[in-house]
Amino acid sequence: MSFKTIEWRDDKVIMLDQTKLPHEEKYNEYSDFQGVAEAIKTMVIRGAPAIGVAAAMGIALGAKDIIADRYETFYAQLNNICNALGRTRPTAINLFWGIERMKKVAEANKEKDLNSIRALLKAEAISIENEDLQICKALGRHGASLIKEGSTILTHCNAGALATAGYGTALGVIRAAHEAGKKIKVFADETRPWLQGARLTAWELMKDKIPVTLITDSMAGWFMKQGEINCVIVGADRIAANGDSANKIGTYSVAVLAKENRIPFYVAAPISTLDFSLKNGDKIPIEERPIQEVTTIQGKAIAPEGVKVRNPAFDVTPSKYITGIITERGIVRGDYEEGLKKLVGK
Amino acid sequence: MSFKTIEWRDDKVIMLDQTKLPHEEKYNEYSDFQGVAEAIKTMVIRGAPAIGVAAAMGIALGAKDIIADRYETFYAQLNNICNALGRTRPTAINLFWGIERMKKVAEANKEKDLNSIRALLKAEAISIENEDLQICKALGRHGASLIKEGSTILTHCNAGALATAGYGTALGVIRAAHEAGKKIKVFADETRPWLQGARLTAWELMKDKIPVTLITDSMAGWFMKQGEINCVIVGADRIAANGDSANKIGTYSVAVLAKENRIPFYVAAPISTLDFSLKNGDKIPIEERPIQEVTTIQGKAIAPEGVKVRNPAFDVTPSKYITGIITERGIVRGDYEEGLKKLVGK
Repeated sequence: MSFKTIEWRDDKVIMLDQTKLPHEEKYNEYSDFQGVAEAIKTMVIRGAPAIGVAAAMGIALGAKDIIADRYETFYAQLNNICNALGRTRPTAINLFWGIERMKKVAEANKEKDLNSIRALLKAEAISIENEDLQICKALGRHGASLIKEGSTILTHCNAGALATAGYGTALGVIRAAHEAGKKIKVFADETRPWLQGARLTAWELMKDKIPVTLITDSMAGWFMKQGEINCVIVGADRIAANGDSANKIGTYSVAVLAKENRIPFYVAAPISTLDFSLKNGDKIPIEERPIQEVTTIQGKAIAPEGVKVRNPAFDVTPSKYITGIITERGIVRGDYEEGLKKLVGK
Repeated sequence: MSFKTIEWRDDKVIMLDQTKLPHEEKYNEYSDFQGVAEAIKTMVIRGAPAIGVAAAMGIALGAKDIIADRYETFYAQLNNICNALGRTRPTAINLFWGIERMKKVAEANKEKDLNSIRALLKAEAISIENEDLQICKALGRHGASLIKEGSTILTHCNAGALATAGYGTALGVIRAAHEAGKKIKVFADETRPWLQGARLTAWELMKDKIPVTLITDSMAGWFMKQGEINCVIVGADRIAANGDSANKIGTYSVAVLAKENRIPFYVAAPISTLDFSLKNGDKIPIEERPIQEVTTIQGKAIAPEGVKVRNPAFDVTPSKYITGIITERGIVRGDYEEGLKKLVGK
């Protein structure tokens, strides 16, 4: 890739500032966990796998600065740091998965001296990043088998290199199909309110010279009806045990429209997105974000002052609309409850 | 109403500039047909019934300036003016309906002197405006019977006072229900790319103190699924003989989502929107508008430079998704082909 979403360098966390794209390719440096937490909250970095990596790196940064004489004091402070990072965004489970992995490293090494634990936490955060890239590539290879030569693929939001350590989930499948020499085209929903599609997906696909056409969210259904879209691939922020999938607001609508038009609808996500503690999608917490995301665009008001606004950032697509869930361990179809369990060896 | 969408005053046409709303309530004056044509094309005025009125007034303005000694020369020039106005926007049939009405006035009075014809054309344009207001009120009364106490109604785009001579079609139904004392709430889709919902519908409902909540287009389906929306009402730009209805891009998606969630979906439109020359919606011409409507918002770029864009301004909702078509002569349901014919006495 010609850009790097997130990186650990010289005991700092470097992030490509996604609030500035596509106009400016600016990298921010963070040297404490508070900065990372703020970056997640304000969406300098976003995308479920990417914020899992960011949280882990935030914890490693925080651990460096903890002042403590013994493990218990160290761990109590580490726990506070984890809680602070856990409060940034509620929907993507990968955030909590990243935090849990980091906690377990501390717990498993409680007998070691604190500096060794700090070093192990840093190593774990960097592993999570490296693994994520490999996971995306494996997921992409599995998914590419589903993409027919000459297809036009619709995607919503950005489940790309920018949403992961690199390569992407939904866009990983698209990249893998493209790299395999398949002639494909992508329709990118602009994805209001935050415009991830217009600002991020269009940008990263253009960088890779993968043909992309930008449309508004309201056009997707019409292009399906006109026969211009052959399949849909999106990412996910949390997948319940029965396959119900939370993803960017608007995904549910795209799924219903795909079903109505008999177009396959795939979810591409690493297994770290699975939440077996939830039987179905009803209990997935849905973040409501500031109303300014809807009433202003790049600082300009687009609605009357004082208008009432709702701004849920995610919705849940019931698994009955999903043709397949593409993971790094293969594709699950049909009985998701069985299939997802089997996938993780439960 | 505390504003006037379009008005004939002192041999000028006055329009509320809808490109400037909601930030500025600015009225433009037009004294020739070219100005009116440009205003329709650039959406200073928009909405199917309103552009029918605008075209008629444009023709009356144009007729004033025709230099001719006899009817044939006069009519040939009038015909050119009609063609120029007919080229402004292709989808809304009301535009062509308005033009035809004006032509017929000239033809029916060919024996009269040219100044009398000019006066009759001006009178006809003003009648079309007055009739449109009465039509909207009648349509509103019929439609209000469908709105249950306590309902939340979703609307897409702006089929309001701003889209007509006043009162509105979809918003006319909502206004009539509100005036009848029903406690109702409105969800307004922002309606990308042109933001008619955010800029116009929210503005005119707030002016009338009708509770309105602004959402992005991608949220409508999710709020339906959550049980927060009880019915959908939209306008139309052209309705084919079988009830298939062209309306603002995104309407088809809303209709499919309403059906999936068992929510009634109504189209509110005057009978001037009916196009019996088209058996179904397949042949309705769909305008593609400039890509800058998608790539920029209020002059600010929101997408990478050079990105490929599609921008169809309308879509067609097959009549199977429509629960009822609300007109000034009553509500048609079920067999639209039969029902619409009966309505106009065909």
